[in-house]
Amino acid sequence: MDRIGRMRRLLVACLVSAAVLAEAQGRRPVSLVVIGGTVITENAARTILSPGAVAIDGATIVAVDTPDAIAARYQPAETLAARDQIVLPGLINTHTHAPMVMYRGLADDLALMEWLNTYIFPAEAKTVSPEMVRIGTRLAALEMIESGTTTYADMYYFEEEVARATRAAGLRGVLGETILQFAVADAKTPAEGVARTERFIKEFKDDSLIVPAVAPHALYTTDKATIDACVELARRYGVPVITHLAETEDEVRFARERFNMTPTAYLESIGFWGQRTLAAHGVWVTDEDIAILARRGVGVAHNPESNMKLASGTAPVTKYLAAGVALGLGTDGAASNNDLDMFEAMRQASFLAKHAAHDPTVVPARTALDLATIGGARALGMDRLIGSLEAGKRADLITVSTSAARQTPLYDPVSHLVYTTRGDDVRTTIVDGKILMRDRRVLTLDRATVIADANRLASKVRAAVRP
Amino acid sequence: MDRIGRMRRLLVACLVSAAVLAEAQGRRPVSLVVIGGTVITENAARTILSPGAVAIDGATIVAVDTPDAIAARYQPAETLAARDQIVLPGLINTHTHAPMVMYRGLADDLALMEWLNTYIFPAEAKTVSPEMVRIGTRLAALEMIESGTTTYADMYYFEEEVARATRAAGLRGVLGETILQFAVADAKTPAEGVARTERFIKEFKDDSLIVPAVAPHALYTTDKATIDACVELARRYGVPVITHLAETEDEVRFARERFNMTPTAYLESIGFWGQRTLAAHGVWVTDEDIAILARRGVGVAHNPESNMKLASGTAPVTKYLAAGVALGLGTDGAASNNDLDMFEAMRQASFLAKHAAHDPTVVPARTALDLATIGGARALGMDRLIGSLEAGKRADLITVSTSAARQTPLYDPVSHLVYTTRGDDVRTTIVDGKILMRDRRVLTLDRATVIADANRLASKVRAAVRP
Repeated sequence: MDRIGRMRRLLVACLVSAAVLAEAQGRRPVSLVVIGGTVITENAARTILSPGAVAIDGATIVAVDTPDAIAARYQPAETLAARDQIVLPGLINTHTHAPMVMYRGLADDLALMEWLNTYIFPAEAKTVSPEMVRIGTRLAALEMIESGTTTYADMYYFEEEVARATRAAGLRGVLGETILQFAVADAKTPAEGVARTERFIKEFKDDSLIVPAVAPHALYTTDKATIDACVELARRYGVPVITHLAETEDEVRFARERFNMTPTAYLESIGFWGQRTLAAHGVWVTDEDIAILARRGVGVAHNPESNMKLASGTAPVTKYLAAGVALGLGTDGAASNNDLDMFEAMRQASFLAKHAAHDPTVVPARTALDLATIGGARALGMDRLIGSLEAGKRADLITVSTSAARQTPLYDPVSHLVYTTRGDDVRTTIVDGKILMRDRRVLTLDRATVIADANRLASKVRAAVRP
Repeated sequence: MDRIGRMRRLLVACLVSAAVLAEAQGRRPVSLVVIGGTVITENAARTILSPGAVAIDGATIVAVDTPDAIAARYQPAETLAARDQIVLPGLINTHTHAPMVMYRGLADDLALMEWLNTYIFPAEAKTVSPEMVRIGTRLAALEMIESGTTTYADMYYFEEEVARATRAAGLRGVLGETILQFAVADAKTPAEGVARTERFIKEFKDDSLIVPAVAPHALYTTDKATIDACVELARRYGVPVITHLAETEDEVRFARERFNMTPTAYLESIGFWGQRTLAAHGVWVTDEDIAILARRGVGVAHNPESNMKLASGTAPVTKYLAAGVALGLGTDGAASNNDLDMFEAMRQASFLAKHAAHDPTVVPARTALDLATIGGARALGMDRLIGSLEAGKRADLITVSTSAARQTPLYDPVSHLVYTTRGDDVRTTIVDGKILMRDRRVLTLDRATVIADANRLASKVRAAVRP
C-alpha cells in the first residue's frame, strides 16, 4: 500500500466524528451533560437521584437519570462534573426591583415613610436614568447568577434597560414597567407609562428569555382607569400583570376607607385578577381574600426577609398552601432586604412560618425548597417550562458545593440547601442550556467592570441623599 | 581605608536591627499591625476609623488609630494589610453546644419531643464519647474560625475534650460540663458531674484561653441539691455558671406547677443568680424576671435563629436592653440552627425584633453588632478583656472582605456587616494576638483531616438513628 493510500485511510478515520460514532453506538449527541452529585429534580414525585445526571440539548433538558443511564444513552459535546455537589433547578425569585441594588444599605432601620421620603425617593428622583438602570441591573444579575437565581420577576423603571441587561447576562426574567399615578423617572403620566409598556411588550414579546409584563404598582398608587388600562393591555397581548398587594396594614386601611373592601376584594370587584397575575407580598389577607386568589389562579410572591426587616407583618403561608394558591418566594428589592440571595429567602420562609405558627413542623425544608423552585414557576405561570429538572423543560439548573465546614456532615441534602447553604456555595449556573457561571466564574458579565460601574454610580447616589 | 575595615563597618551596619532603628526613631517594636480598611472599634464612643489600624504586641492591643499614627509610632514584626476590608472585634457566640455540629441536619422540622426522643437522644446515647467530642469540637472550631467567631460559650459532655480542642485551635472559650439529674455520657449521677466539673476547673483555671464554668443544664433537668452544689462549686473557684433559662412555655408551666413561680423567680428564690451567671434563651420572662436579671447582673444569651426554627418564642430583646441586662447573641447548637455563623445571628436578631415589635426601627444594625461583640463580652463578664478594639484589651479581631456583588455598593459598613455579610466573607481571624486564619486559610487546624474525621464519624451517627 502506498503512503498516499495510508494517509487517505487515516484521514477518513479522523473524519468519522465522535458524534457519528455515538450515533452508530445508539448514543444521541447532546450539547451538555451534568453528571455526578445529588440531583434534586423537584418533579411531581420529588425524585432525588444520588448520584444522578442531567442531559441537555440546546436550551432543553432531554433526560434526568442515573449517571450510568445517561452515559449509555447520550454523547455530550461538553460534560460538567458535579461530584460532591447538589444539582437542582435554578432558583426563582418572584419579586424584586433589580436596579435598587444601587440603594442597598443606603438607609436602614427607619420607619417606612421616613425611609422613603428622606432616602429612597430623593435618591430615585436624582439618580434613576437608563444608565443607572443598566448599571444596577448588571450588578443585580451578577449577584443573582452568583447566588443561583435563574429566573426573576421585576418591576422598576426603564424596564427595557432591565430587559436588555438581563438578556445579555443570560438570565430569564418576567419584567414589568412600573406604572404609577404620579410622574416617575420614565413617564410623566400613567398613560405615558402604559404607552411605554406597550412598546416594551412589542420589543420583547418573542424573546426566548424575557417575558414582558404590565406592572401597575399597587392599588393605592394607581386609580381605577389606570388599572383598567393595564389589564386591557395585558389581555390584548397575552402577557402577565405584576402588582404589589396588601403589603402593609396601611394599605388595608386605605382600601377599607376608600372602597369599604380589602385590597384583594376590591381588585376582584373590578375584574383585576386573572390566571396571569402575580401579587407581591399578600401579607394582610383574610380567608376570603385567600379563596379569591386561589380561585383566580393568582400567583403570590412571599418575601419573608423584606416583611421582617420592614416589619410589614406575616404572610399566611400555611393558609396559602392549604388553599392551593400558587406561592413563590421573593427577596424584594435589595434596598429592603438587603441582598438577592434566594437561599436566605428559603431559610427565612421556614423560620418565619414556624415562628408565626408556634410550630416547628410547618414549612419544612422540603416546602421551602418547593417554594423557591416549582412553586415560583407556578406563581409565574411558567411551570410547564421551568421549576423542575424534567425532560422537555428548559435547562435552568444550578450546582451547589457541600464541602464547607458549616455543611459538614451531610445527612439530608434538602435540609442542607435550606438551613446551611448560602448563595456563595453555588458553583455553576445554567439558564436555557447556557452556562452563565462555571466554578464561580461568571462568563456573561465582566465582574470587575460591573462592580466598578456600580461603585462610580454609588458616589452620585451618596451625594443625592446628603443632607 | 583597608578592605577589612570597610567590611567591619558594613557588618556593624547590618547588625543594627530594624527594631533598634525603630527604637532610635522612637518607634516601639510590636508583633503585629493590621493596617488599612475600616476599623470598627466598638469602644464606648463607637469610634469608626476609615482607614484605621490596630497595633498588637503579643496577646494585647497596644493602639487603635489612623494608619499614619500607627506607622509613626510602631515598628511591627508582621504587617497585615486590610485594605478594602472591615476590621472589627472578633464575634462572641454566647451559647452553643459545639460538638453537636455532628448532628446538624440529622433531623429538622419536628416537634421538640419527637426530635429529641427519635433523633438527638438516641444519637447522643450511641455516639457521645471523648472521640466524638474531640472530632465535633474541631469541626465546630474550624467553622467558627472560618466565620469570625473568636470566643464562644459552650455546654456539653466531656468538656475537657472541648477545652483541649478549643485551646489547640486557638479560640477563646467559656466552657461548662453539662450537669443533669439523670445519667449522661460522662457522668452516671449529678454528683459525678459535679466532681468531673471540679477536676475540669482545676485543669483549666489558669489557662489563657479557656474559662472553665459550671453548667447545670436547666431547672427542669436538675434538682435543688444539684443546683446548690453547682453554685457552691462555682463560688468556691470563682468561675461562671451557665444554664438554660425559660426557653419554652413548657418550662414556664413546669416551674409554675412545681414552684408556683416563674423559672427566673424560682432561681432567684434559691440564690442561684449572680454576677457571673449566663442564662441562655430567656424567651419566656416577665417584666419582674427581667428586673431580677438586670439587678443580679446576669448575662443573657439570645438565640434568635434557634428560637425561630424550634418555634420557641420571641425573647424580649428591647425590654432586656431598656433594663440594662447584659445581652449577647448565640447560635445555639448546630443541631437546632443549623450553623454557627454569628453574622446570621446578628441579622436574625434584628429581623426578629423588628417583626415582633411591628417596628422597623428597633434593633438597628448598630445594636445587632453591639450584641455580637461588646454585648456578648458583657454577658460573659469579660468586657474588660474582649468585645472591642481598645488598647489594653486582648487582640481578638477579624477582617471581613466587602468585595462581593451582594456587598456592592457600600454606604454604611455597619449595615453591611449585619444585613449582607456572611461568615464566609471573613478573611482573617486573630485571637490573643495569634493569627488563626489568614486569607481564608486556617492555620491551627488541618482542614482536610477535620472534615474527613467528621464524615467518618457521621456514618456512625447515621447508623445510630436508623430505624
